[in-house]
Amino acid sequence: MSDKPKRIGAVKQITSHSNPLVKEIKGLVSQRKHRTQSGLFVAEGLKLVTDALEAGWVVRYLALGPEARENPIAQKAAATAKAQGALILEVNTAVMSAMTRKDNPQMVVGVYEQKLHQLEDIDPGTSSVWIALDRVRDPGNLGTIIRTADAVGASGVILIDDCTDPFAVETVRATMGSLFHVPVVKTGATQFKGLLKRWPGTVAGTHLEGSVDYREPEYGEPVLLVMGNEQQGLSDEMAAACKTLIRIPQAGQADSLNLAVATGICLYEIRRPHLKL
Amino acid sequence: MSDKPKRIGAVKQITSHSNPLVKEIKGLVSQRKHRTQSGLFVAEGLKLVTDALEAGWVVRYLALGPEARENPIAQKAAATAKAQGALILEVNTAVMSAMTRKDNPQMVVGVYEQKLHQLEDIDPGTSSVWIALDRVRDPGNLGTIIRTADAVGASGVILIDDCTDPFAVETVRATMGSLFHVPVVKTGATQFKGLLKRWPGTVAGTHLEGSVDYREPEYGEPVLLVMGNEQQGLSDEMAAACKTLIRIPQAGQADSLNLAVATGICLYEIRRPHLKL
Repeated sequence: MSDKPKRIGAVKQITSHSNPLVKEIKGLVSQRKHRTQSGLFVAEGLKLVTDALEAGWVVRYLALGPEARENPIAQKAAATAKAQGALILEVNTAVMSAMTRKDNPQMVVGVYEQKLHQLEDIDPGTSSVWIALDRVRDPGNLGTIIRTADAVGASGVILIDDCTDPFAVETVRATMGSLFHVPVVKTGATQFKGLLKRWPGTVAGTHLEGSVDYREPEYGEPVLLVMGNEQQGLSDEMAAACKTLIRIPQAGQADSLNLAVATGICLYEIRRPHLKL
Repeated sequence: MSDKPKRIGAVKQITSHSNPLVKEIKGLVSQRKHRTQSGLFVAEGLKLVTDALEAGWVVRYLALGPEARENPIAQKAAATAKAQGALILEVNTAVMSAMTRKDNPQMVVGVYEQKLHQLEDIDPGTSSVWIALDRVRDPGNLGTIIRTADAVGASGVILIDDCTDPFAVETVRATMGSLFHVPVVKTGATQFKGLLKRWPGTVAGTHLEGSVDYREPEYGEPVLLVMGNEQQGLSDEMAAACKTLIRIPQAGQADSLNLAVATGICLYEIRRPHLKL
């Protein structure tokens, strides 16, 4: 969050790999440190770029490859971004490749300002469903969970302690644009346990030793679903703080389910009475 | 499937990156062509290696890093593999890194013979659940689906037409060992449509335009669940061949669910009456 946004709404041609903006975007793609220090992140591809613009996220740069400059949707996105003060970068395929560290880069890449919420912003209300993730590690899992949260109409996702970066390129990609619609909160375990204590509705943690079948609870809203880390599940401390510990039954020889799959199954159970075709 | 297995049950020290076995394993890690031609594949890490041995998969080579040679479980795995005729490779960390193309390689890596089943091997019987994937693209999705298939006690996974490689390192890793327990069948669309026609029980395809809520059907067994490709879903032709087209309802602004999540939700619905804590 160091520099002030440069809201100049201009167009700039870049042909050199050593241009400082190319280096900046490259850093945002590959290094979490870079993303955290600048408060920026990268979304690749026309779908994500237009989703972000429509959802009102602040765009800093929009880089267009040669194909994008022939594409009406990309042109419209560029016009919108420019009107909002973004710097439009017209680049060749080689520069786009270098920026995104990919052999077959997308035709358009956007750089946006990160948006994270505070625990204090959460209002359980009477009908919300929040998903809390305790030290989630895998960017694909986090992105997929944000996507599923959107699909069931959940209120948001809470990241507890040291989670993978919600603004990593892989995470953003896996959200399929839902990052721009689902509020993400970052917090620590102590603060989160405070929320658990004062939560007015259902608190359900998933645990391999949970004694309650995930289909049993009534899930009176507001619901807070707490999911553990991929390797270790919920910490003992966090499990003890959850009112109900649920478990998804299994047959076969698998030890457990993938975290994003388990979260999806629980969310569809929680929202079962409300979701209709 | 070109070379005959060398079942020599010996131990060999390797310190050079240019050793032909290092090159061979490197090729199996990074190139599908290499895996297909040799009929071999690589599983990384102690859990996968021991799962494969316990499930009776034929191990060709077992590479142990320095840590593994101090680890009783890894030592036992090596003894078992050697007794079965595998070549045990004792390597240093640098060689392990080169083999697996990773900065922080696992302590043990196994090379196994691929095992794929034919469509003719499928016996629907009276109580089976099979999952068919139409041109699945993402290794993580495929691996996760195989893991979920195992968790619900499904009979197997059918890969239709041009799917991602079930023996890619990322796929194998995502199965978390379930690859060694769940039969995988490869087939073409035409052959598969033959199976659809003669299937004696429920055939359900998922489709974004499906008119049946996924919770509605009775799912009389045997069940054949047909899932489409990540981008395009089921082909029109394949959708037309399914007796029932189901859909998972959604709220929010997401267009769709991740393929592995959608498959998990459907499988837990299909097996709902049978799965108990």
